[in-house]
Amino acid sequence: MNSRLRKSREFDLITSLFSKSRAPSFDLGIGDDAAVFSPPSNQSLVLSIDTSVEGRHFPAGFPPEFIAKRALGSALSDIAAMGAQPHHFTIALTLPEFDTVWCERFSTGLYDLAEQFNISLVGGDTTKGPLTISIQVHGLVDKGNYLTRSSASPADLIFVSGCLGDAHAGLLLALEGKELTEPYQQALFESFASPTPQIALGMAVNGLASSALDVSDGLLADLEHLCCASGLSAELELSAVPLSDDLLKYRDYDFAMQAALNGGDDYQLLITASSDKRQRLLELGFIEIGAMLADEGSVLSAKLNGESVALPEKRGFDHFE
Amino acid sequence: MNSRLRKSREFDLITSLFSKSRAPSFDLGIGDDAAVFSPPSNQSLVLSIDTSVEGRHFPAGFPPEFIAKRALGSALSDIAAMGAQPHHFTIALTLPEFDTVWCERFSTGLYDLAEQFNISLVGGDTTKGPLTISIQVHGLVDKGNYLTRSSASPADLIFVSGCLGDAHAGLLLALEGKELTEPYQQALFESFASPTPQIALGMAVNGLASSALDVSDGLLADLEHLCCASGLSAELELSAVPLSDDLLKYRDYDFAMQAALNGGDDYQLLITASSDKRQRLLELGFIEIGAMLADEGSVLSAKLNGESVALPEKRGFDHFE
Repeated sequence: MNSRLRKSREFDLITSLFSKSRAPSFDLGIGDDAAVFSPPSNQSLVLSIDTSVEGRHFPAGFPPEFIAKRALGSALSDIAAMGAQPHHFTIALTLPEFDTVWCERFSTGLYDLAEQFNISLVGGDTTKGPLTISIQVHGLVDKGNYLTRSSASPADLIFVSGCLGDAHAGLLLALEGKELTEPYQQALFESFASPTPQIALGMAVNGLASSALDVSDGLLADLEHLCCASGLSAELELSAVPLSDDLLKYRDYDFAMQAALNGGDDYQLLITASSDKRQRLLELGFIEIGAMLADEGSVLSAKLNGESVALPEKRGFDHFE
Repeated sequence: MNSRLRKSREFDLITSLFSKSRAPSFDLGIGDDAAVFSPPSNQSLVLSIDTSVEGRHFPAGFPPEFIAKRALGSALSDIAAMGAQPHHFTIALTLPEFDTVWCERFSTGLYDLAEQFNISLVGGDTTKGPLTISIQVHGLVDKGNYLTRSSASPADLIFVSGCLGDAHAGLLLALEGKELTEPYQQALFESFASPTPQIALGMAVNGLASSALDVSDGLLADLEHLCCASGLSAELELSAVPLSDDLLKYRDYDFAMQAALNGGDDYQLLITASSDKRQRLLELGFIEIGAMLADEGSVLSAKLNGESVALPEKRGFDHFE
């Protein structure tokens, strides 16, 4: 935490809430102008920063535990997509007012997830203003050994690490604001509120996958990013896109497919791999949903049970809409 | 930049504005889920994150070049206070709306300062929301060789790297909103709007100073941080606190001294050193302003021309006031 945190009882409390990490591998942790870290000489640092804004990434009044879990979980997902092991993180927290209970609940959610992935909080800044959370996560990989989104090859197969669309349904449930009485509703809500970064799978496919990214903007938008970065096109088989039973209990198939294609926030991995890796990937739980095409136009096309179908024009969610 | 940037012409423009860096020493720069960096094996990474919020750290309607320069300059100051060489940074930019001219001007200010310190932008996230900028800066130091605020010794002398109070006067000028007709007004405004991180001096005193931090919250508040971290007290000689001619042209001596003691935002270095380093530090341009005391109570006291005087109770600026 920088020095601005150390001036009042409020600041002291925030500092104590966010100074629980011991960060044993750090030369110097929280409490000075900066933290100091000496990465192992055979490893590279993987770094990514992500922002969550109230009213845009989560609804106003969202439970603080989940604001924290969602912010850290989605940030960790970028590390998963690189095939890296997360190591530590920093947080820039902007709060409209000081609220002990809110801060304690936020801190509880943050440390729950941090402990689950064995990562330390090593620095931060707390300021007053509209509720905004930026988290920078750092991971480690063996030197030169990381996944990118730009390295897919023509004829590679396309896989996802799990069901899509649940998080979008969970967001709609959160916005409805009704009590979640059914287990499937709770499951969908948590898909949105507490996404699981696919760290273990990311590390497992490092060396198997030809390219990777995480599905944060919706399958179509993220597959388009992968196509653009790799200079290729892709064809999906829509009947293969995995939809959860929970999602299909919430709404009908058409809704579920739209949520899977355009909903975003699922934080599953989207990877490509050559066909000789197919069996290994299926054993790891990946689901095959299409193939890359040599066409350089970065065009997405789709089939449904083998017949060509049109894809929706709108892809993903534009934060500036 | 993460994938959310890549969905519209607006996003494309922002991405292009912030992708000018080449980051030659990076394994992988902007454009994937994360950046990848392999630090030299004999060096440690120094990392700090800092947030600037409109209406709190700078007035609404502040010129975008200066918002960028102030945000990056103050973030770099934390690296200076560690005695480190800045290397690269990431930015999390939250914007209320897309505005081409604003973004271009912000980007111009950002790259001006980045080029001056030869650092690369290696990642970021752009979201829609109230204007907030978080910047994480990374520096490098030889392993184990960095400055902290917790390592001052009793009887160490206290030094600052330059005049204090100018930034506070500059903020007041900015808030007045009048045209700055006099050169001294322009100088004060730029002290606030475009602070100079004392990178070269931080590196120069690494090995000379016993402790260091940067004056972001005002001399008294930051000296108190240093005392708390080091478990010591301190006594200032107020007549030695350096006040600029520009500041004394703006207002009287009493105002200037209050601005120097409590104004903040100056981003000068505040260091302690044993008396045998005094001559070297004076040659570097440091100004001696007091001495550390063995008392563990972290008490600040002051003299004016050798006579004991009371210090104001209020110290620094509390962002939660």
